[in-house]
Amino acid sequence: MHVADAPHLRVLRLLRDEGPVSRAELGDRLELTRPRLLAEVERLVAAGLIAEAGMAASRGGRRSTLVELHPRLRFAAVDLGASSIDIEVTNGRLEPVATYRESADIRSGPRQILQRVNELLHKARTDGAYDRLDAVGIGVPGPVSYRDGVPVSPPIMPGWDRYPVRELLAREHGCPAVVDNDVNIMAIGERHGGVAHSVDDFLFVKIGTGIGCGIHLGGTVYRGVDGCAGDIGHIQVDPNGPVCSCGNTGCLEALFSGFALARDALAVARSGESPALAERLAAYQAALQAAGEAGGEGDDERPEPAVHISARDVAEGAAEGDVTCIRLIREGGRRVGGVLATLVSFSNPSMIVIGGGLALLGHVLLAEIRSVVYRRSLPLATGNLPVVLSELGSRAGVTGAAVLASDTAFEQAS
Amino acid sequence: MHVADAPHLRVLRLLRDEGPVSRAELGDRLELTRPRLLAEVERLVAAGLIAEAGMAASRGGRRSTLVELHPRLRFAAVDLGASSIDIEVTNGRLEPVATYRESADIRSGPRQILQRVNELLHKARTDGAYDRLDAVGIGVPGPVSYRDGVPVSPPIMPGWDRYPVRELLAREHGCPAVVDNDVNIMAIGERHGGVAHSVDDFLFVKIGTGIGCGIHLGGTVYRGVDGCAGDIGHIQVDPNGPVCSCGNTGCLEALFSGFALARDALAVARSGESPALAERLAAYQAALQAAGEAGGEGDDERPEPAVHISARDVAEGAAEGDVTCIRLIREGGRRVGGVLATLVSFSNPSMIVIGGGLALLGHVLLAEIRSVVYRRSLPLATGNLPVVLSELGSRAGVTGAAVLASDTAFEQAS
Repeated sequence: MHVADAPHLRVLRLLRDEGPVSRAELGDRLELTRPRLLAEVERLVAAGLIAEAGMAASRGGRRSTLVELHPRLRFAAVDLGASSIDIEVTNGRLEPVATYRESADIRSGPRQILQRVNELLHKARTDGAYDRLDAVGIGVPGPVSYRDGVPVSPPIMPGWDRYPVRELLAREHGCPAVVDNDVNIMAIGERHGGVAHSVDDFLFVKIGTGIGCGIHLGGTVYRGVDGCAGDIGHIQVDPNGPVCSCGNTGCLEALFSGFALARDALAVARSGESPALAERLAAYQAALQAAGEAGGEGDDERPEPAVHISARDVAEGAAEGDVTCIRLIREGGRRVGGVLATLVSFSNPSMIVIGGGLALLGHVLLAEIRSVVYRRSLPLATGNLPVVLSELGSRAGVTGAAVLASDTAFEQAS
Repeated sequence: MHVADAPHLRVLRLLRDEGPVSRAELGDRLELTRPRLLAEVERLVAAGLIAEAGMAASRGGRRSTLVELHPRLRFAAVDLGASSIDIEVTNGRLEPVATYRESADIRSGPRQILQRVNELLHKARTDGAYDRLDAVGIGVPGPVSYRDGVPVSPPIMPGWDRYPVRELLAREHGCPAVVDNDVNIMAIGERHGGVAHSVDDFLFVKIGTGIGCGIHLGGTVYRGVDGCAGDIGHIQVDPNGPVCSCGNTGCLEALFSGFALARDALAVARSGESPALAERLAAYQAALQAAGEAGGEGDDERPEPAVHISARDVAEGAAEGDVTCIRLIREGGRRVGGVLATLVSFSNPSMIVIGGGLALLGHVLLAEIRSVVYRRSLPLATGNLPVVLSELGSRAGVTGAAVLASDTAFEQAS
């Protein structure tokens, strides 16, 4: 059973999403009687959540006062990746007032990573980004018990299992905190400010180092019974495929992901099958060697430095017309499309958004995914199904974390 | 945004699901103040929906009056299959007071089928099952626009596309009507009175002539944007598989379903690979020949009568230890399990219920499905995931249709 959203929540969300609004329009939009609305507004002004913002243009009668979210409001949005920390401090309208991004290995464990998050947030205060925070929202790259505010058996996050992330952040910053899976917050972000704006039923597919799916159904994120809904990277797509980091064979992300593409790209660069990648590999090796000679100390024991061909190299090779690069992208798109065709038949969404690092492979990838989904899913389910790229890119995660943080602050303000 | 269930709905549903309850207990259970509850009860008595049912046992103070759903309440529940009509007329507690079941080809079209439904319902009235109906609920074997109350592009229902089923039933019987997909009503039925009792997040997989999936998420059926969520029968599981009725190759239901199993069973009976099925085939042929000779009129032009090996024959063969019968069931279970493993990783449900005609294949089928799902889905998602057989069997559909009918009647009683 769902409880109807309380009037104060509807007022706060409308001001967050649309900016200053007159009292008169607010009453009309939210279908609240004038006394009820005035009581709510008075209460929210007293609570320091909203403020007056001058007079609205006349609608013929008496001019109405504009109200807006209090300019003092601040939310902290944190997006932890496998190898990065992204932070935005936003105002009430979720516009960034401070941004921090740095590399960090999630495997360093929760103490070290959260300490760094706290340092960056305290630095933001010193920098003048806020006096106090109203809520913190954080996304982590693994399953989360949303109710308990803890990661649950996250495969790539050793030491984080049931670590009290929400509780520690709330205590440190003296405000509510909320923890979710990184793909879920990307989906929420894309719905708030991206290509899925106001779409109620869509899938957000993140193709990065791994693959995951944010499931937005009926206007809300569906997280599953154990918080691992959308964990599609380990769906078996080829029983004869390569061994995956999870120990099974032929998982989707063992065949196509940032990791798999780097592996396959290095192989075709070394074999010379892809002239474009072979050329880049040679250039990287020369640069590494030059750096090694420049800084050389005669230590012959040191391991040969790793060279790395990235998704960007493959995208550039494809743009230059390198057929092997195009083949790698299309084969990947075909794998992802096959899984998505199944998920479309199952969940009949109204949009699919492709995000994550490999979205930079762009339209070659998108065209192949579309082709498979449109061919293999039910015609009724694909008759009007856009398959599109994320608009927010790397900002999707922090945007969604800010939305969650603000929702949490608003809910606790009752 | 969800609207909180109104008090009258909560009162009516509790009396439907639990039977007579004292006013005092009703107030406690629904957390309603005494004046509020008494006003609701008075209103529902006046509307003829509930009635007094004697005195409750004392709880120490004054004895409280029991109330129950009015004994006159009647709901009609209709489950249309590809080749059958199932009807139950129920009382307010959804107990059947009249039952009808007969063969009918859904391809005869909506006029003929609905006329027959109406005839059976009028017959029920003549038989004394009801004076008037409070609502009709009907399930059909294809996608439905739940909002509009019409089938939408149903592949095996020629002539039914956007046919105004809800409107015509409502007009004919002078009460609200509600239309849903047949697998959705089975899921609703299993949740009301079967193995998924009170489970909020589960998948109901119907393996009958075709294959479909009812998706129950967060306590409610998820129908998808076009009403075709759960249509998993045409997921491609083998690009080199047999051609499906939909025109694609290797769809799940082309490899395993009532239709596919009958086809494969006939083949191994004819080839002699399965002694158990070969024996049954010979017996059927002899019986047919005897019937033909008995009724023979020397018409040599007539086509050879079709012999049919059914799922029940395969189940019996397997029970006798026929290895080919066991292989057919296990291969089928493996196919279904492979698709379910994907859907479990995606949707992280808390239970999977297997129903439909092929559920009679029982534990051999179930064991194979379990084995694949447990091996191939995420450990976190399968740690506590029962995969069980439907308890209601062929009554799941009418039970769910009665639940939908009663919900609709209760909602319109406000």
